[in-house]
Amino acid sequence: VRIVMRPTATVREIARVAATIETMGCQAHIAREDKRTTIGAAGSPQQLDRDHLLALPGVQEILDTRMPFKLAGREFHAQPTTVRVGDLSIGGDALAVFAGPCAVESEDQMLATAQAVKSGGAHALRGGAFKPRTSPYSFQGLGREGLQILDRVRRATGLPVASEITHPEDVSAMVETVDILQIGARNMQNYALLQAVGRVQTPVLLKRGMMSTLEELLMSAEYILAQGNSQVILCERGIRTFETYTRNTLDISAVPLLKQLSHLPVIVDPSHGTGRRELVEPIALAAVAAGADGLLIEVHVDPDSALSDGHQSLTPARFEALMERLRPVADVVGRTM
Amino acid sequence: VRIVMRPTATVREIARVAATIETMGCQAHIAREDKRTTIGAAGSPQQLDRDHLLALPGVQEILDTRMPFKLAGREFHAQPTTVRVGDLSIGGDALAVFAGPCAVESEDQMLATAQAVKSGGAHALRGGAFKPRTSPYSFQGLGREGLQILDRVRRATGLPVASEITHPEDVSAMVETVDILQIGARNMQNYALLQAVGRVQTPVLLKRGMMSTLEELLMSAEYILAQGNSQVILCERGIRTFETYTRNTLDISAVPLLKQLSHLPVIVDPSHGTGRRELVEPIALAAVAAGADGLLIEVHVDPDSALSDGHQSLTPARFEALMERLRPVADVVGRTM
Amino acid sequence: VRIVMRPTATVREIARVAATIETMGCQAHIAREDKRTTIGAAGSPQQLDRDHLLALPGVQEILDTRMPFKLAGREFHAQPTTVRVGDLSIGGDALAVFAGPCAVESEDQMLATAQAVKSGGAHALRGGAFKPRTSPYSFQGLGREGLQILDRVRRATGLPVASEITHPEDVSAMVETVDILQIGARNMQNYALLQAVGRVQTPVLLKRGMMSTLEELLMSAEYILAQGNSQVILCERGIRTFETYTRNTLDISAVPLLKQLSHLPVIVDPSHGTGRRELVEPIALAAVAAGADGLLIEVHVDPDSALSDGHQSLTPARFEALMERLRPVADVVGRTM
Amino acid sequence: VRIVMRPTATVREIARVAATIETMGCQAHIAREDKRTTIGAAGSPQQLDRDHLLALPGVQEILDTRMPFKLAGREFHAQPTTVRVGDLSIGGDALAVFAGPCAVESEDQMLATAQAVKSGGAHALRGGAFKPRTSPYSFQGLGREGLQILDRVRRATGLPVASEITHPEDVSAMVETVDILQIGARNMQNYALLQAVGRVQTPVLLKRGMMSTLEELLMSAEYILAQGNSQVILCERGIRTFETYTRNTLDISAVPLLKQLSHLPVIVDPSHGTGRRELVEPIALAAVAAGADGLLIEVHVDPDSALSDGHQSLTPARFEALMERLRPVADVVGRTM
Repeated sequence: VRIVMRPTATVREIARVAATIETMGCQAHIAREDKRTTIGAAGSPQQLDRDHLLALPGVQEILDTRMPFKLAGREFHAQPTTVRVGDLSIGGDALAVFAGPCAVESEDQMLATAQAVKSGGAHALRGGAFKPRTSPYSFQGLGREGLQILDRVRRATGLPVASEITHPEDVSAMVETVDILQIGARNMQNYALLQAVGRVQTPVLLKRGMMSTLEELLMSAEYILAQGNSQVILCERGIRTFETYTRNTLDISAVPLLKQLSHLPVIVDPSHGTGRRELVEPIALAAVAAGADGLLIEVHVDPDSALSDGHQSLTPARFEALMERLRPVADVVGRTM
Repeated sequence: VRIVMRPTATVREIARVAATIETMGCQAHIAREDKRTTIGAAGSPQQLDRDHLLALPGVQEILDTRMPFKLAGREFHAQPTTVRVGDLSIGGDALAVFAGPCAVESEDQMLATAQAVKSGGAHALRGGAFKPRTSPYSFQGLGREGLQILDRVRRATGLPVASEITHPEDVSAMVETVDILQIGARNMQNYALLQAVGRVQTPVLLKRGMMSTLEELLMSAEYILAQGNSQVILCERGIRTFETYTRNTLDISAVPLLKQLSHLPVIVDPSHGTGRRELVEPIALAAVAAGADGLLIEVHVDPDSALSDGHQSLTPARFEALMERLRPVADVVGRTM
Repeated sequence: VRIVMRPTATVREIARVAATIETMGCQAHIAREDKRTTIGAAGSPQQLDRDHLLALPGVQEILDTRMPFKLAGREFHAQPTTVRVGDLSIGGDALAVFAGPCAVESEDQMLATAQAVKSGGAHALRGGAFKPRTSPYSFQGLGREGLQILDRVRRATGLPVASEITHPEDVSAMVETVDILQIGARNMQNYALLQAVGRVQTPVLLKRGMMSTLEELLMSAEYILAQGNSQVILCERGIRTFETYTRNTLDISAVPLLKQLSHLPVIVDPSHGTGRRELVEPIALAAVAAGADGLLIEVHVDPDSALSDGHQSLTPARFEALMERLRPVADVVGRTM
Repeated sequence: VRIVMRPTATVREIARVAATIETMGCQAHIAREDKRTTIGAAGSPQQLDRDHLLALPGVQEILDTRMPFKLAGREFHAQPTTVRVGDLSIGGDALAVFAGPCAVESEDQMLATAQAVKSGGAHALRGGAFKPRTSPYSFQGLGREGLQILDRVRRATGLPVASEITHPEDVSAMVETVDILQIGARNMQNYALLQAVGRVQTPVLLKRGMMSTLEELLMSAEYILAQGNSQVILCERGIRTFETYTRNTLDISAVPLLKQLSHLPVIVDPSHGTGRRELVEPIALAAVAAGADGLLIEVHVDPDSALSDGHQSLTPARFEALMERLRPVADVVGRTM
């Protein structure tokens, strides 16, 4: 909690507020930022008598310091947000599982995968038409053709589709063909893109940058929310560390922390988070046990011939087995599937 | 898998082995180290006909490259190791929960905590008599007096005790008063200490260094095993990253990876791994779901007056509630409590 | 160096190439990727007789493995690239120093700063009109108005101007008003933006992402080069680590490594690289001693009232003193100023 | 700067001190730790009127917050410390260069290297008799026999010798045979070892842990100083990051920061700091330009046959060339060689 003083507040008024905060059992931290004095109250802010503080001379308002994310934070929005896509709810009691290949490769591949994951129990399909790749010479996705495939597959199967957007100009085309716009890790701080998806009402799945703090992730969500789109899903997908056995280090603590800091739904991507097929199942179970609202799982009908990320993709059979294993864990933490 | 060639092997013999490996469906990688040529076989090494390879001219033996840890690795020790401390087994079907304060502060505190965690369902007591602290001016533990307290408390409660050792000279005193010797994160590569605890038969709880790779952790275990002590328990306790909301980033993937690479039991310390009391429960649940053999939980009868780590310690009541929550998750992954 | 085999190459042909490489004093590593077999030659590739290898049956071509960046790499472009902006050359004998404020705040501020840094010896002006900020509520720059200010200031002072671009749509407006398009750390992997600046001929200053590897930086340069813009300057600006005394950890080894791997000019930003005013001078000296082609220095006429990054900005007087200190170091490493 | 209040200070007295600090142009931060209230003064602490503050009711003393390292810090020891080993001074005007192999391999090798580096201009010899290695199966050094070799070589050449100590028990043997006790990166927080070398008067070369902050490094120096040994040299040798081209990321900012925070000499190890022979020279030049008091360089008479770290060792000829290149840079920053 932070008490904002009026620009005209005197040193005496500031000192009185600080002393009052201390009397109420908190530690006071006086700071002057951009000509404005604020007094932080650390410790047990619930003990503060806010009305009394607001009545002191020189006090303008009371804010929360830990949360520079006003719209994404829990402070002014205590109830969890549920993102709705047709019949699917993300962030409610039911666990939401997105499954599908890294990249849209062909209509046959997408349709086969979609049918397989639907029958395995997935609630939504994932698949990239635009693939941001480290090398300009790697496969960059089928582009607009890939979007058409996704559109036909979602109509054929009834599964809602999440797909990555990489260019602000693509928003209008993508909102026609997909149900959820995914912002990839590399673009988490591409503010032009965040603002563009903030100006539509299509749900956005925002992945944490591989080098980003949780505060930065929430500030990026704030960019979208501040434009008027309140349908944001956060996704932990692993961060970059010195460990080399795994592609990334999945930050499992991000799940309860994000749930505590924010009202937005939080899902986990164990496929990118580990980069290894055999780790997807234990980490998926862990994510649900830690309180995740859903999962993003790479599934490919033929992982060994996948154009990207085959080594971390499950076969449909293995995905189905994973879903069976998830059910009792979901049950324990009070989730339905 | 790596094929080691004899020092006398000719280029032609080496090329023939490489070509044979390729024919068997793997990729061959020829390397010359210290005058010795070895040929790695990557891909699907289970497809290799090892007898056929061993019969080729110039071949000396077949080794596994991924595992420079011969004793800690699964390769020559496929069955999981169960570490036994009196009636307690670590690494078997039953989950093992160690609980207690960061530091031994007094006999009253230890006895009260021990009774509380025992009644809450803990299987062993933790508590440090020697505390390695970043500052020489911080509380360094009660030392030998702390050991005496631990000894009396384990006799009074029947709980086995784990406590940190920081000096090779202390081995003989500690094996008399505690049941499990803990090597802390800062000492994971203190080889003099590892060798000293390797020369006794008391079980060792080896914590991962805060910026150590899993391979380094297993190599440190190897130091202990190589001295003859086979009773080693590995512990994931979080690594150092750029994220600042948490004290460390708990590497949940370490659990299934260590279980896959090694036969040693793997436990998780969600208290140090997160540094925040409110994250201990969700991360403990996640660790068990990911396959951990046990947990190390900081519990203090009065966390706010703890001499160290109070902010990440649970009260006995909260510990008991955590144990209740753990039970069904343990059940789902086939563990008893 | 990597020998690419024809798709039709037989196992016998592959083995013969591998054996030949070994005979020439290198280690051979056979790999099969996407149905294509390649044989890496590690060790002392300069000892390879390339003509002889190319003449062997089954060999298609010889590539360099360490450099997936064909255009940015030294392999096919041994001579260093000199980027020219009017009279200024970056990457030649003369050191190039960019100086100016983090953000364009007003015409008065920019003009005063520009005159001060010009008189202090700077070769180019820096200043952001579009500021990508972690929070949507922070000052985002003056935008198009800022560009107009930069345009008038460069006309008034004759200094070329570098300014950050954040949106692909801004390319056409920016190439009219600034001389060098800067890509910030957060956008290093914003491929839509990289491709957009690749389609013009204006020089690009590409900053390393705060948690990007050098290989990723060079691959991002490759995105620009592959579109036809060959005027790319690389910039080391510090990476994110666990150290907290500094804002970032400046990776000084990046300078000689990038110069060795690539023909592109390499400059260093000690202001962002340290985040502390008092470290700018020693790190600037170190960067030049390590072989940097130039520096990017934050200078503000009144750092304490700067709208952003004031704590890491030099005053004009301190900048002038730095330039004096740089001169003899530049001289020692054979650079002119 | 931090003002410590008496335990009996009233809230009114605390508020008055805070208000006074604000009046003097700083920000006040009130904190209560262990029942004691302290008030931090951030911003421009040199503006504080310390006498006036000390005279206020309730004030006990004034401390510096940024420096929990009382003995290693500059605060109470403004003059730089010069460590003396015979005729060699480390931390004065003259640059001190330590050169030699990673490990003592034989008397011939050590003697040849010592003579070569002495003739190349080195001031001291380095070489490990005890080698802490990640694997228990790697070469661990010649041990006591290596110490005897070092003793004979220093007598033969007159060069002082630095060598790593790994076990508290070895102190008495080592102080007889070497001139400087080196604490390696893995043992930076091995407090039993730090205290043991703190109890003798032999100079200690303390390397930064690969996972340690600068504050932790200084706190480890504090452990040695607190035991009575004031002859400590700090060494930056690279930290662990995600970058893989280099073995470690050398933190060049550590040099000016450590010099600013502490009075102890600071040297740089570009051999371990980069892990690549071709980077040693540019990084050595950078370190001296940034203000280092000396360098630690790996030199081997036959790097390709070295038992460890050959790839990062210079030949004597290359070392001599480096010394020639260093001279003018040292001159520019006011150092003699």
